[in-house]
Amino acid sequence: MSMRSHYCGLVTEDLIGHTVTLCGWVNRRRDHGGVIFVDLRDREGYVQVVCDPDRPEMFAIAEDLRNEFCIQVKGLVRARPEGTTNDNLKSGKIEVLCHELTVLNPSVTPPFQLDDENLSETTRLTHRVLDLRRPYMQNNLMLRYRVTMEVRKFLDEHGFIDIETPMLTKSTPEGARDYLVPSRVHDGHFFALPQSPQLFKQLLMVAGYDRYYQITKCFRDEDLRADRQPEFTQIDIETSFLGEQEIRDLFQRMITHVFRQTMNVDLGEFPVMPYAEAMFKYGSDKPDLRVKLEFTELTDVMKDVDFKVFSGPATTPGGRVVALRVPGGSEISRSEIDAYTEFVKIYGAKGLAWIKVNDVAAGRDGLQSPIVKNLHDAAITAILERTGARSGDILFFGADKAKVVNDAIGALRLKIGHGELAKKTGLFEDRWAPLWVVDFPMFEFDEDDHRWNAVHHPFTAPKDGHEDDMDSDPGKCVAKAYDMVLNGWELGGGSVRIHRAEVQSKVFDALKISPEDAQLKFGFLLDALQYGAPPHGGLAFGLDRLVTLMTKAESIRDVIAFPKTQRAQDLLTQAPSPVDEKQLRELHIRLRNPAAV
Amino acid sequence: MSMRSHYCGLVTEDLIGHTVTLCGWVNRRRDHGGVIFVDLRDREGYVQVVCDPDRPEMFAIAEDLRNEFCIQVKGLVRARPEGTTNDNLKSGKIEVLCHELTVLNPSVTPPFQLDDENLSETTRLTHRVLDLRRPYMQNNLMLRYRVTMEVRKFLDEHGFIDIETPMLTKSTPEGARDYLVPSRVHDGHFFALPQSPQLFKQLLMVAGYDRYYQITKCFRDEDLRADRQPEFTQIDIETSFLGEQEIRDLFQRMITHVFRQTMNVDLGEFPVMPYAEAMFKYGSDKPDLRVKLEFTELTDVMKDVDFKVFSGPATTPGGRVVALRVPGGSEISRSEIDAYTEFVKIYGAKGLAWIKVNDVAAGRDGLQSPIVKNLHDAAITAILERTGARSGDILFFGADKAKVVNDAIGALRLKIGHGELAKKTGLFEDRWAPLWVVDFPMFEFDEDDHRWNAVHHPFTAPKDGHEDDMDSDPGKCVAKAYDMVLNGWELGGGSVRIHRAEVQSKVFDALKISPEDAQLKFGFLLDALQYGAPPHGGLAFGLDRLVTLMTKAESIRDVIAFPKTQRAQDLLTQAPSPVDEKQLRELHIRLRNPAAV
Repeated sequence: MSMRSHYCGLVTEDLIGHTVTLCGWVNRRRDHGGVIFVDLRDREGYVQVVCDPDRPEMFAIAEDLRNEFCIQVKGLVRARPEGTTNDNLKSGKIEVLCHELTVLNPSVTPPFQLDDENLSETTRLTHRVLDLRRPYMQNNLMLRYRVTMEVRKFLDEHGFIDIETPMLTKSTPEGARDYLVPSRVHDGHFFALPQSPQLFKQLLMVAGYDRYYQITKCFRDEDLRADRQPEFTQIDIETSFLGEQEIRDLFQRMITHVFRQTMNVDLGEFPVMPYAEAMFKYGSDKPDLRVKLEFTELTDVMKDVDFKVFSGPATTPGGRVVALRVPGGSEISRSEIDAYTEFVKIYGAKGLAWIKVNDVAAGRDGLQSPIVKNLHDAAITAILERTGARSGDILFFGADKAKVVNDAIGALRLKIGHGELAKKTGLFEDRWAPLWVVDFPMFEFDEDDHRWNAVHHPFTAPKDGHEDDMDSDPGKCVAKAYDMVLNGWELGGGSVRIHRAEVQSKVFDALKISPEDAQLKFGFLLDALQYGAPPHGGLAFGLDRLVTLMTKAESIRDVIAFPKTQRAQDLLTQAPSPVDEKQLRELHIRLRNPAAV
Repeated sequence: MSMRSHYCGLVTEDLIGHTVTLCGWVNRRRDHGGVIFVDLRDREGYVQVVCDPDRPEMFAIAEDLRNEFCIQVKGLVRARPEGTTNDNLKSGKIEVLCHELTVLNPSVTPPFQLDDENLSETTRLTHRVLDLRRPYMQNNLMLRYRVTMEVRKFLDEHGFIDIETPMLTKSTPEGARDYLVPSRVHDGHFFALPQSPQLFKQLLMVAGYDRYYQITKCFRDEDLRADRQPEFTQIDIETSFLGEQEIRDLFQRMITHVFRQTMNVDLGEFPVMPYAEAMFKYGSDKPDLRVKLEFTELTDVMKDVDFKVFSGPATTPGGRVVALRVPGGSEISRSEIDAYTEFVKIYGAKGLAWIKVNDVAAGRDGLQSPIVKNLHDAAITAILERTGARSGDILFFGADKAKVVNDAIGALRLKIGHGELAKKTGLFEDRWAPLWVVDFPMFEFDEDDHRWNAVHHPFTAPKDGHEDDMDSDPGKCVAKAYDMVLNGWELGGGSVRIHRAEVQSKVFDALKISPEDAQLKFGFLLDALQYGAPPHGGLAFGLDRLVTLMTKAESIRDVIAFPKTQRAQDLLTQAPSPVDEKQLRELHIRLRNPAAV
């Protein structure tokens, strides 16, 4: 026998005439006409409890109720009087006439009202337990749970099994910074918390487990951005004996299943876009397709203009010149343009050229712009034709190294596309916009280190027929790698892996990782590949990010019960904290700056 | 399209006449009468593949196959010739006549035969990937997965939601030793890996999540025993608004469900035994009820015997004298008794008195024993009557501090009960023997520190009516704590928690934890209790242990994909390992003994 018969939020008109016992928290108490009304709250919602003075013992208790008291109510479900129903609540047609009332636990006055919408994040994280009582947070975490459960059900039905991989693992100096854990047993040795189970899941494929998944914590000790946490949760998946297309199909179905089951949303078909096309059109490998703005390539026609700002990048290898046409954008004011100019500088742009198209039929004369005078007629014609400009549009220009152009104009595209103008003019479509980005390059050249780096990771397989490019022309080599993008966020990504040792060696060669170094760092994987490793591949989804998107939460911290701040602190428990000297001694370490503590 | 149409192990006679495509590993190749037979293996089992020389291209490939090659086979399913079927295999009635054969990946010769039963653990853990290919390990990990999935389904149906709690949390100096993680951002500060999510799950109850669970890693940096790992997995559960009885009922049903769904085992009813009774009868709080041996209490009748070994403990407060009667045990030899004597010394016993009952009707004269001469007639009579001794039995005695007696004779009970004699004489019943042990004491007295410690943890609620004992007589105070025991292993344990701040304060008083100290260590919990914390309780199961029991694995390491050794090392990846000086500098720590690395 539970202390209750029903959840508060689930008492409906089906129970009229029945006696129920409810437990929950006083969300609000109102006194009205000598009667006390209590909005009682639990995980499932609210119910209205009515306390009449004709039961004086019970009424006396009701009079002492305050917000957030935890109480038990026994009473009769009855229809609310006409005109007092609340269609926003499942229980909105009924109320519970209280017969017995027990205070399970009183509450001191909370430091804030639970329905206060203007709390600072510091307040919310410091008093996280009360913050977590808010329906907003409860809905977020309940949805997060339902997402994981639907993922598990889908994967179970498709033969995937959850296998745990170690949390105390080996530090690898590549990639992001590791969180280290000193060993007590092995003086001077350290474990690392995993950045991902990548190598272990590949080992499980070699070991014949066929289909693996795990919803697991990963760790990166990086400087935090708004959507990053030191510990984050990954839906990590790997399968044997499937090719790239089948892997993508399967996990498209998985995400589609999750959206349908948890939100009743149909994601529809996922477009598939090569990386090169995404960069060409949107300057981004995770374009937000809700924004109906595209780059127009102009590099070729700007080579011989008198305007150095354009002709410089256009004639320099690795340079790029593009336009971004914003239909109806001529109403953007000078001060807004100035603000955009400052904005693109964040991404390395030196400025932001623009042309307002007042009258496209008038050609050069119909254009308003500080730069038109520097462009010859052929360039003007090309700009207008290629962008398809119409009267009333504005064109913005990016001209720099391709990376700067892509980053700056890509960011501007989103800023405008998510703004008021775009919503008003239909340039922003309010929908779910999923997308596969495929055919990523295997390698990117690191200008500083003068070497090729792996774009994904060094275990990613090259496309069939691209194996030989690894020696001769690494920059041309395309990988069997894919990212799933939703509304401009990378939801997940993965690749077909290399399963043959000799291909793996070629990749290490291209990356200038010596056989000795490779053996030292990844020896256990290389060894495993020798024993009949199966063809395999997989991917990983960021759960925190997925749920943030689904709930439209303001921050990733709103879908995590106990998150860290951007200074990597837990304000609730005050972690990290100083520890005893004895603990440090046992771990064979000492502080560099004892005075810092 | 997958590279295969079916799993090898699941090709049955239903598919006779169909063409199938299979992927797997060569488990064995036999040449017989000019034909090559391949036992092909995957996660789901074996299938026999027949390669006829009349397809020479395919046959040439088959001739080069070696063990552990990863291959793809396309062929026709046909019935095996009469007399060659194998009833041990699902696919034992059929074979696949190979039409096409592709080597997906060859294998070098493995360092051991996969079916070698005599591998050292070091070999197995060093070559874990090959070890994990063995059907024994695959079955263990598949069962582990099915257990977790059935747990999740059960909990989902009962309204429990999985909520993640932090891995990077606060160090608490109590309890087991923490694994520490130095903070880069906060000089001199450390996170700790969680020993359990205990405080967080209680906070989630206070926050109104109502029913929580998590299958999560926990960490203890303790010296390892056979059934311990530095990181282990806990099925962690908490609920609001249920009392002790309902919590036990629910989780008894959960474990019953898991055994039924995954092993088709009916666990039957769980006996419920108070802690005091378990200690009285078995000297253990996790008695193995398959062993039909019980202690006989003799303390009272040994007070005035001439034998100091007995009368000493019998007249000392906290002393205990018991007999353990082993029916049919008089055949135990002197050398076996000597071995038992050495065995009980491990547990602190100084020796092991014994009496062989050759002829119970003859009284003293029918007894064979070095100690009988020291016991007066009343003592002899009491021993024979209380133990219910019969001719052919042996009685062993424990006399010491109660803890030593319980530990030593409890261990002896198991050693004899699990031995050959017990199996032969029916003293050991080969069955599943579940049990609830309840009514644990709240506190135990620490003789060294001269203070009371919490038996479970300081958040455990006292039984109703025992609150006042906390001041006056802590030793009498019984807790709402319970352990689930199976075959002598503690599967899980938990308690109803304290939900009222004033009761929590009383417990801290009894434990001599000052209000300031309590605030410092558990302040965030104490704060939370003030805001209408609901009545709540829960428990945690050790997943590794549960699966070890279910699979009858020899070691907990056989149900974990990538375990640590007893020296807390991962032999596969060679973790822990030395790290770069740069990493240490960033973490504001240095090694005490740089020479150790």
